[in-house]
Amino acid sequence: MNVSPEWIAVDWGSSNLRAFAMRGGEPLAESASGEGASGLAREDFEPALLRVIGPWLTEGRVTPVLACGMVGARHGWIEAPYRAVPCAPVAPGETILAPTQDPRLSLRITPGLSQASPADVMRGEETQIAGFLAGEPAFAGALILPGTHSKQARIADGKVLSFSTWMTGELFALLSQGSVLRHSLQSGEGEDLAAFVEGVGIGAEGRALRGLFALRAEGLLEGLPAQAARSRLSGMLIGAELAGFDPGGDCVVIGAGGLARAYLAALRSLGLAARACDGAELARRGLALIQEGKNL
Amino acid sequence: MNVSPEWIAVDWGSSNLRAFAMRGGEPLAESASGEGASGLAREDFEPALLRVIGPWLTEGRVTPVLACGMVGARHGWIEAPYRAVPCAPVAPGETILAPTQDPRLSLRITPGLSQASPADVMRGEETQIAGFLAGEPAFAGALILPGTHSKQARIADGKVLSFSTWMTGELFALLSQGSVLRHSLQSGEGEDLAAFVEGVGIGAEGRALRGLFALRAEGLLEGLPAQAARSRLSGMLIGAELAGFDPGGDCVVIGAGGLARAYLAALRSLGLAARACDGAELARRGLALIQEGKNL
Repeated sequence: MNVSPEWIAVDWGSSNLRAFAMRGGEPLAESASGEGASGLAREDFEPALLRVIGPWLTEGRVTPVLACGMVGARHGWIEAPYRAVPCAPVAPGETILAPTQDPRLSLRITPGLSQASPADVMRGEETQIAGFLAGEPAFAGALILPGTHSKQARIADGKVLSFSTWMTGELFALLSQGSVLRHSLQSGEGEDLAAFVEGVGIGAEGRALRGLFALRAEGLLEGLPAQAARSRLSGMLIGAELAGFDPGGDCVVIGAGGLARAYLAALRSLGLAARACDGAELARRGLALIQEGKNL
Repeated sequence: MNVSPEWIAVDWGSSNLRAFAMRGGEPLAESASGEGASGLAREDFEPALLRVIGPWLTEGRVTPVLACGMVGARHGWIEAPYRAVPCAPVAPGETILAPTQDPRLSLRITPGLSQASPADVMRGEETQIAGFLAGEPAFAGALILPGTHSKQARIADGKVLSFSTWMTGELFALLSQGSVLRHSLQSGEGEDLAAFVEGVGIGAEGRALRGLFALRAEGLLEGLPAQAARSRLSGMLIGAELAGFDPGGDCVVIGAGGLARAYLAALRSLGLAARACDGAELARRGLALIQEGKNL
């Protein structure tokens, strides 16, 4: 099957690369690889991209490619600028052209967002936010985008007013895989909701760092099961992220699966109403808006 | 030079093994290796010990060896019990005999301490505390033993009343070496006292987890130097450990060098008076007390 797209949308984060062959705003085909931006040297980006989108390119024709995410970071393909909040999540006129070798490629990369105080940056999530606001243009409140580096963004009037980044997912990975706690957490897959909610309370009260070693000690002294320890750790870190959180309006968790369910359960246990929105297609939608030249 | 000790004192933690050839309470010689308890399988302990103390053993004679620390943990040579606080830091009558192959060896391991609520455990620090209290038997207040797993212990009447464990050192290592922050911290050796004190304030106010990613963002947006970022991270984690800390009496940091200086600076910036006591010989002194059969 030959796919001949008008353009190609690329969501290129730290650990994954996802590409969509597009006709207007509609995807014709999708392809992906694990060659995330964080593992690539500058000269590796173009070959990594061609491995994924090569079959969609046509000899003698230039196909426009639009990419968002860590591909535009300082150690990415080329550093794209940041746009300072408060501002619309994306600005079609401000993409930058990346240097390419293959004559079939014309690659543009979208800017990230920055905040002066407290200092913060995002790359990729702004495009997801644009995709979300395309469906809910009047949204006012907070978006939570959980992950390795979880983002909380305040939204009103189609703009990102402010945001904060939390290393929640990375801390969980470091502590559960690389610290002394791994002995107490390993083979603890599955969810223990009561332990998770207990952890959320500990974290929301500012006691997450104090409570870390207790996971080990309770395992040694009381036989705390690995599943409960793992769920409590997850709750403690998410609770710490949500300590003092006030959506100031509607609250949506961008995500799906266990992680989105965990954030919804944490918010609920803190007395906050929220809903989830599957984020899988939002980056593609946001890129389509930029490609069409629509500010949002 | 032949050294023929009456007995041998062994301080065997997670990452190091230190042994002293002893005559009564006096060291005749010292030897060490990097074969810490955390890296050894059960059958590796005796060979690792013999590599360090072998030259001090005499054919046809049994030399008593007394060891404290993680050598007595669940994954150590043999699991030694815990003694529950409040209690004296050590109890000579409660060491346990470890299984050995070499006929020249008779090895006893000291118990650790446990606390029921909040659940906590220590192994090795109790022997250092006993060594400290031998010199200051009337001490009343708090001891801080910084390290990978920092311990705070409340002391009165020669007893450990309660204690808490903080993963301060391990978190610093994980974040500075294994997380996205490594890009902002690497080649940042050396101390930036102002940045450290700023970090202590952030941590003491319960904002350490919120402040982590700002180290990265300030590096990208404002060129925050790696040394300042590294010092601030250290301050944030130590400040979080000391949030709400009240020694309830005298306060001594057990340690030497940069880490002890950092804790003293952090305490001072929080308005708390403290002094440092070099901990290098305290475990040996504590082991000598146990060997002499002295409760403390």
